[in-house]
Amino acid sequence: MKKLIATLCIAFAASTAGAYTPNKIVVPDVEGYKTLKCDFHLHTVFSDATVWPTTRVQEAVWEGLDAIAITDHIDTRHQKMVKNGYFNKEKCDRNTSFVLTKKAAEGTDLIVIHGGEITREMAPGHWNCIFVKDNEAIVNNAEKFNDDHFKAAKAGLKEAHKQGAFTFWNHPQWNKHAPNETKWYPEHTDLLKAGYMQGVEVYNGEYCPEAHGWALEHNLTIFANTDGHAPFFYEIDYLHGEHRPVTLVFAKERSEEGIREALDNQRTVAFAEGMIYGREDNVRALYDACVKIVDVKHTWRSTDITIENRSSIPLRFSKAPGSEMWSYTRDWEIAPNSVQTISVRALQKDHKYQEITAKEVDINLYVNTYLVGPNQPLKVNYKITRE
Amino acid sequence: MKKLIATLCIAFAASTAGAYTPNKIVVPDVEGYKTLKCDFHLHTVFSDATVWPTTRVQEAVWEGLDAIAITDHIDTRHQKMVKNGYFNKEKCDRNTSFVLTKKAAEGTDLIVIHGGEITREMAPGHWNCIFVKDNEAIVNNAEKFNDDHFKAAKAGLKEAHKQGAFTFWNHPQWNKHAPNETKWYPEHTDLLKAGYMQGVEVYNGEYCPEAHGWALEHNLTIFANTDGHAPFFYEIDYLHGEHRPVTLVFAKERSEEGIREALDNQRTVAFAEGMIYGREDNVRALYDACVKIVDVKHTWRSTDITIENRSSIPLRFSKAPGSEMWSYTRDWEIAPNSVQTISVRALQKDHKYQEITAKEVDINLYVNTYLVGPNQPLKVNYKITRE
Amino acid sequence: MKKLIATLCIAFAASTAGAYTPNKIVVPDVEGYKTLKCDFHLHTVFSDATVWPTTRVQEAVWEGLDAIAITDHIDTRHQKMVKNGYFNKEKCDRNTSFVLTKKAAEGTDLIVIHGGEITREMAPGHWNCIFVKDNEAIVNNAEKFNDDHFKAAKAGLKEAHKQGAFTFWNHPQWNKHAPNETKWYPEHTDLLKAGYMQGVEVYNGEYCPEAHGWALEHNLTIFANTDGHAPFFYEIDYLHGEHRPVTLVFAKERSEEGIREALDNQRTVAFAEGMIYGREDNVRALYDACVKIVDVKHTWRSTDITIENRSSIPLRFSKAPGSEMWSYTRDWEIAPNSVQTISVRALQKDHKYQEITAKEVDINLYVNTYLVGPNQPLKVNYKITRE
Amino acid sequence: MKKLIATLCIAFAASTAGAYTPNKIVVPDVEGYKTLKCDFHLHTVFSDATVWPTTRVQEAVWEGLDAIAITDHIDTRHQKMVKNGYFNKEKCDRNTSFVLTKKAAEGTDLIVIHGGEITREMAPGHWNCIFVKDNEAIVNNAEKFNDDHFKAAKAGLKEAHKQGAFTFWNHPQWNKHAPNETKWYPEHTDLLKAGYMQGVEVYNGEYCPEAHGWALEHNLTIFANTDGHAPFFYEIDYLHGEHRPVTLVFAKERSEEGIREALDNQRTVAFAEGMIYGREDNVRALYDACVKIVDVKHTWRSTDITIENRSSIPLRFSKAPGSEMWSYTRDWEIAPNSVQTISVRALQKDHKYQEITAKEVDINLYVNTYLVGPNQPLKVNYKITRE
Repeated sequence: MKKLIATLCIAFAASTAGAYTPNKIVVPDVEGYKTLKCDFHLHTVFSDATVWPTTRVQEAVWEGLDAIAITDHIDTRHQKMVKNGYFNKEKCDRNTSFVLTKKAAEGTDLIVIHGGEITREMAPGHWNCIFVKDNEAIVNNAEKFNDDHFKAAKAGLKEAHKQGAFTFWNHPQWNKHAPNETKWYPEHTDLLKAGYMQGVEVYNGEYCPEAHGWALEHNLTIFANTDGHAPFFYEIDYLHGEHRPVTLVFAKERSEEGIREALDNQRTVAFAEGMIYGREDNVRALYDACVKIVDVKHTWRSTDITIENRSSIPLRFSKAPGSEMWSYTRDWEIAPNSVQTISVRALQKDHKYQEITAKEVDINLYVNTYLVGPNQPLKVNYKITRE
Repeated sequence: MKKLIATLCIAFAASTAGAYTPNKIVVPDVEGYKTLKCDFHLHTVFSDATVWPTTRVQEAVWEGLDAIAITDHIDTRHQKMVKNGYFNKEKCDRNTSFVLTKKAAEGTDLIVIHGGEITREMAPGHWNCIFVKDNEAIVNNAEKFNDDHFKAAKAGLKEAHKQGAFTFWNHPQWNKHAPNETKWYPEHTDLLKAGYMQGVEVYNGEYCPEAHGWALEHNLTIFANTDGHAPFFYEIDYLHGEHRPVTLVFAKERSEEGIREALDNQRTVAFAEGMIYGREDNVRALYDACVKIVDVKHTWRSTDITIENRSSIPLRFSKAPGSEMWSYTRDWEIAPNSVQTISVRALQKDHKYQEITAKEVDINLYVNTYLVGPNQPLKVNYKITRE
Repeated sequence: MKKLIATLCIAFAASTAGAYTPNKIVVPDVEGYKTLKCDFHLHTVFSDATVWPTTRVQEAVWEGLDAIAITDHIDTRHQKMVKNGYFNKEKCDRNTSFVLTKKAAEGTDLIVIHGGEITREMAPGHWNCIFVKDNEAIVNNAEKFNDDHFKAAKAGLKEAHKQGAFTFWNHPQWNKHAPNETKWYPEHTDLLKAGYMQGVEVYNGEYCPEAHGWALEHNLTIFANTDGHAPFFYEIDYLHGEHRPVTLVFAKERSEEGIREALDNQRTVAFAEGMIYGREDNVRALYDACVKIVDVKHTWRSTDITIENRSSIPLRFSKAPGSEMWSYTRDWEIAPNSVQTISVRALQKDHKYQEITAKEVDINLYVNTYLVGPNQPLKVNYKITRE
Repeated sequence: MKKLIATLCIAFAASTAGAYTPNKIVVPDVEGYKTLKCDFHLHTVFSDATVWPTTRVQEAVWEGLDAIAITDHIDTRHQKMVKNGYFNKEKCDRNTSFVLTKKAAEGTDLIVIHGGEITREMAPGHWNCIFVKDNEAIVNNAEKFNDDHFKAAKAGLKEAHKQGAFTFWNHPQWNKHAPNETKWYPEHTDLLKAGYMQGVEVYNGEYCPEAHGWALEHNLTIFANTDGHAPFFYEIDYLHGEHRPVTLVFAKERSEEGIREALDNQRTVAFAEGMIYGREDNVRALYDACVKIVDVKHTWRSTDITIENRSSIPLRFSKAPGSEMWSYTRDWEIAPNSVQTISVRALQKDHKYQEITAKEVDINLYVNTYLVGPNQPLKVNYKITRE
């Protein structure tokens, strides 16, 4: 380790953007789009977290992320932190953590998005506003209704949209908000109709199948975010290859505008703890980009298909209905960035291998790590011609 | 790296038994028994694998295993290998791989068990015989019935038992043997009645829920084995903390006899890919040894329970029925060898925290990584007194 | 990863003190003393670093350290940071980073020591004051002489000692202070005579052999510190087993007082980048605690000595003068926490092995990773009786 | 882990050649040549090692090597192994380990070179013959002189050269051959004159500076080989990023012929334990390929040069004579595959930073991890124009 003074650290962040990403999350671009790895829900010491803004940049660069949004609590919790007196109220407001993060990212290619979290009791719960311009104005509007959580949140969301924000519902399943069941309240219908319910976190700390269902039903943009309060080295087991959860954004270009356009058009999937959650078209596009048949060999009794997993997303397959005349392994895996060969045979008779006489081998698989609905795996089919 | 000549390597194996186990599988002893990590299904170049016997010892020492059984195919597949002509038939027979492995383990504390695999078509499929004395005699008896897989296997098993062996059914779900469904055949009932069906592999390459069910129904000893043919460095992702599957044996003493007594009395569980599979009493004993409440703190509105996972077995909890009046996280995890705090609250009213007035907090959890039946998690209950 | 709110993070820190230390630095206790792993030079956002104080606690707990000192720059650099306006001058002073760190460590067993760094041009350069009571008083005294770096530093040190501090010279070799040669100035003699030069950093970013020499000459306490400004995950390659540099303190008890007593009596060594730097008595005591002969075997032509390295400190041996009649490997290593066997033979004649007739084998080794003076290895001798 | 039968393992080896190389040794091509990672000294169970030939292929594929040579002992030690009786003498001879290794590599892109090791007492010691055609003929010639190590070796080398072999001296510093000093014997001069001394191992288990010197003096090809007898997972700490030692070959094409042409023209360097050893032209070519200036920034008082290390070879720099008017860090490092920024300033006056008025910054560095002679570092110079 070399002694680095503070200014050098920033230089280091800048130059390592491409070079030093030991635990890089590998996900290829999908057909027609760049695949961007994003975390749209992050806290700093400027609300109730324990992390200085620059650290958020260093963490993201270290993991090879494309974009982060700083979304400190802008209402009640924010007060608590600032009121404890360590920060100078003249200089610091609810936009300061973004300003400091943005500055720390200068010289890197990390995209930093201005955001804030409206933090209210259920309903409507916590809401993220990203692509905002001024959190102070949002809070000022919200605080007119401080006794009514719903009215306050709605007023805040209204102001956020006036600023051009994109807004979404955070962690619907959070224990404090959904102690025994995870519910959609009439207030959520209200916000949906108002155009404020543009997305939902399908993963935040844990998978929320209800949110996955609502996203499909109401055409909401799907998110997996960290909601990070502690530094990540402390929560994520990088030593064993673990990553932070990310929202994968399929963008026309790698820019703040590109991300916004993709969010507006629901081109995202959630990637967390080795699982993909999304809408079928997005999930299938990602699968097609990640998974390639790289070799096929035929013998009289088998067709051996070698499949490569070109991503950090594990593959866990199981046999799906529709190819009962073929025999192959019921459950199998392909680890991230590796290959595996599956042997397909004709169904045996009398426990003996049979010659394959068909012109085509036809297999159906569930991909149990790619979910297209609540606990519902993607189904894929491969037809392999035997010459 | 230092140049080591062959004889030094063996010395190194001996002395590292306790010292150099970087990827050690950590599992504590259970109440009243030693917990031994065992792999009862291993192949070498003396049947159809690609590994010289000494390597099997080095691998096991490196992972901190307590015991291995060498179970080369002793019938048809064995022939193929020896007949290719590289080995000297005068000197090598079906016990040679055991002899060489045993010799390689001298000076280490690894227990090496003599075994062999009867390799027949379904039914009855492949059968492991461990604690055998002479594989040649087993094959000689089996080969009298070479045209009838069942009779051949049964004759081999009979001879194995004459030698005092413990015998069990391997990988019932193996694709070649169970191409479209995993079945219990009348032949298996026959072998069960004859006393030869003493155990079954519930994990071999993949989990077999059917085998888990049969084990409970017929009081069979439960195994997770590797069936290793390649060297393990090549199949297991040690770099990211992966381990080989093992059978955990709860033995009165750490010895060959201790293992045998435990197998005879079904005191085992399977540990593979982060999951435990077993009979409820064994699974619960293991859970109680691994999982400890290390701290409890009370506030007016919560009881915060800190739980430590003292093992390499991950914990994934979900809320189970029976404590609807309490509110706590629906799904949570405790990684291997770490701790986690769960906050239990009284059910909210009007989305507000409630004071806890009860004398006792009572929570029910499913432990989704500890299965006590086919896809059926262990249920645990914690009652915490509030003073 | 689980969502953890800020208060839970602190609880987590507390309980993991013993449990979750994946990259723990392993060093055994030495004869008669506890070996404590300490970092006495750390910065936070309250001077010119980019890390919030709580993060310093989480990092230290994660690496299994026993003690840290917070030593923010208390003079010019401090001003820069606080004056930029983000902190509330009414609430924050030069002791605030210690107060916040101390609070974050509540519930853990990490020892947090109050400190500050006097930051002046050479001579006398930068000086650490630890075990201070009030940095404001130190600066107030120093600033009376703002135009004279030496007088200012000396006044600060005088006040620190009035408070009972222990003070030492930081990074004498730092490029800015020693651009082309590393020098001891008359000012340092002055401070030594005044009793303020109690120790010196022999490692800070790099090894400083000159400082090692001065420490021996003037009986100074030896330090290896990080001088951390960035978060450590960002500078240290934990993924490949790297650690932060630490000062190993041999203390009568594990407490703030125990550390102080050991520093006052020069019972420390520096441990950095796989090297130990110290005074011979301390270095030898550590070597004796870490390195054990665990097995000896004799043959007619060799004595095979198996040595265990019970620490995270690598061992690199080379043959030392004094045993020319014995033949053994010229250069060899024992990796951290592992064992190695060395074969000692009688010197060959005519390139043939000779029978060993001596009653005693006598080998001399340089331990190139344990330095007892500037670039000077520890020499060890083993006499092994042949029965 | 998935159950893989033996034939699948081979398929797996084949297809993973490019995909699954978690611990890949990264070294870029040098100007005009492909850089190939090779290990020209490997043993199997067919001499005195404990590894079956297929394992040697799997290990090499797993580490991303380009070529290996199988060099089992072909004389006395070979006898020991085969005579113990496990192998069938009718089928196995001194070429069998090559045949089996070659077969295992089918379908992979690993190059397997036929070799053998002549194993004699000093002088002349052990000699590797690679690119041989028939080890039996070599031994038959050698064994005519079994009582005279030198004559036997020379006869074997003569036959090897008749077959077109490339031959080199192994581990001159090996303790058994060089118990108290590492010497060049008259016999080596004899073999040099005969054209048989074409190369020498500069690293085998440890660095041999004497061999490095002789290689320069006599224009010998430089090798770093493993001399592997145990499986590598057992000797190399892959979990912490360690690699096996390799000979880096700068070849016109990636083929057996390409390697041979490069060896014939001394275009190799040794890469072992983080160090490069070679002839200056080769070492400098490699340095130029690995190390790139990726950014330069100028301020009034400094030129900040950002350097990228595009390889697995660590960089450890120290300040070299020739630029005394510039001030920069005396000792610094750039870890594998990362970047670092160095700040160059004008020499201070009165401990104050000076404005840089020169048109060019000129720094000289020793690269302590790239040795161009016995313990002699490469010297590099950078001239940076300030516009």
